[in-house]
Amino acid sequence: MKLLRLGAPGKERPAVLDSAGHTYDLSGLTHDIDGPFLANGGVERIRTALGSGELPLLDTEGLRTGAPVARPGKVVCIGLNYLDHAAETGAEVPLRPVVFMKDPSTVVGPYDTVLIPRGSAKTDWEVELAVVIGRRARYLGYPSDSAEVICGYAISNDVSERAFQLEASSQWDLGKSCETFNPLGPWLVTADEVPDPQALGLRLSVNGVRRQDGTSKDMVFDVAFLVWYLSQYMVLEPGDVINTGTPAGVALGLPDKPYLRAGDTTELTIDGLGSQRQTFEQA
Amino acid sequence: MKLLRLGAPGKERPAVLDSAGHTYDLSGLTHDIDGPFLANGGVERIRTALGSGELPLLDTEGLRTGAPVARPGKVVCIGLNYLDHAAETGAEVPLRPVVFMKDPSTVVGPYDTVLIPRGSAKTDWEVELAVVIGRRARYLGYPSDSAEVICGYAISNDVSERAFQLEASSQWDLGKSCETFNPLGPWLVTADEVPDPQALGLRLSVNGVRRQDGTSKDMVFDVAFLVWYLSQYMVLEPGDVINTGTPAGVALGLPDKPYLRAGDTTELTIDGLGSQRQTFEQA
Repeated sequence: MKLLRLGAPGKERPAVLDSAGHTYDLSGLTHDIDGPFLANGGVERIRTALGSGELPLLDTEGLRTGAPVARPGKVVCIGLNYLDHAAETGAEVPLRPVVFMKDPSTVVGPYDTVLIPRGSAKTDWEVELAVVIGRRARYLGYPSDSAEVICGYAISNDVSERAFQLEASSQWDLGKSCETFNPLGPWLVTADEVPDPQALGLRLSVNGVRRQDGTSKDMVFDVAFLVWYLSQYMVLEPGDVINTGTPAGVALGLPDKPYLRAGDTTELTIDGLGSQRQTFEQA
Repeated sequence: MKLLRLGAPGKERPAVLDSAGHTYDLSGLTHDIDGPFLANGGVERIRTALGSGELPLLDTEGLRTGAPVARPGKVVCIGLNYLDHAAETGAEVPLRPVVFMKDPSTVVGPYDTVLIPRGSAKTDWEVELAVVIGRRARYLGYPSDSAEVICGYAISNDVSERAFQLEASSQWDLGKSCETFNPLGPWLVTADEVPDPQALGLRLSVNGVRRQDGTSKDMVFDVAFLVWYLSQYMVLEPGDVINTGTPAGVALGLPDKPYLRAGDTTELTIDGLGSQRQTFEQA
């Protein structure tokens, strides 16, 4: 199933898109797709409701698409998790995952405007496979236990301001946490529809020019390892989002460093997870 | 006023402690002390209600004290913000604030048990002045504008696992985000009762031995600057918490590096903000 949230910011209506392309209204089942709903068997309740044929069709005409999960408690990011991206940034391949965080309030819809921060000259893109947690994860025993706590997957644009990230101090969060810096969606695709998260093509274009074209096969640390690893250090809660890193092709790694400017448009696609598109404006 | 939340985890009742030492129940006014309540003039509503004499007294006997603000959207931390602490850790005094984040779900009550993570040998303490945001802050014009967005202050123990923070990768968040790693409270003291946040003594003892004894006078970047600075890079929302750094005296900086062990107790005090006390247990 593909879960989504449709409507104005803060007033999104929960919905589900079935395999036939029909969108059904979930607002009779839950007020939102969020951590508490996922924690309380939300996905199974949607599946049952969808199977029963009782859900009303939703007229999606003119409705904005929000992020597919509301108010993540945290957004954890993995840095330098693709060999080619580590190489293009001049970094060594990490021996352990590099873990940092974004302000969770940066999460916006997949087609929302993204703001270039005031004073920014180095706003950059990063297509990433986002993992959405469905069950509490604390000290998982093995990476093979991770599947039980993963609700599903989505596309994430881990927008980054490189001067704020790399030049202001040793810590990256400042350049990752600017307003609107995490478009997410269009859907939360449930894990059963993503049989192998390590076999997904990820692509990103800027103004129609293909800049990133990678595959999740090339992750240094795979999804199952990352969820297990993180659970040794922090508690992952339902609704939390993990951005699992980006392949090569970001502006920082290109010879002419073509950072984003007002008016630029990014398009992101991941196999099976749909696509998103944002236009950038000056904050 | 001193705002607080009393009751079992997740079921705290909002309350206010007045200058005469009486605790009043706020649950007729709001279901919680959280970002939306603060954003909607919550503090003024409490002040009016308290002045009217209509609030019922609350019997606090046997009630646990929770963190004084519920579900922060983010916890932003400032590193190396005291000259003496930068020196003891061998770091240079930063030219700009060092900004990182903790998982907001680490926030617990001021007397709650703190867990030493599995595999930890270097769990450390940090007494800090926490700033709680009361109004949305985005591109503030001047540091002098910060006062308008600050709701108040609290004590924070920015518990840190030094191996996870400093040895696992270049990014610190992993060692700052372990379960229960941010005791907060006992109170959110409203800003009107803290006339000068740069004139507060901060003290921390471990098992009765004084380890930290600093003053917020020695901050490299003061509270007004920090709030203004952060607002240039991220949007600060009501209910967000900023941990403003710790003075010298952490285990990492002591010759014998006396990291915390199960059974140890930390006591923290900041002038005018009360005190907190935690016992550590193995996770």
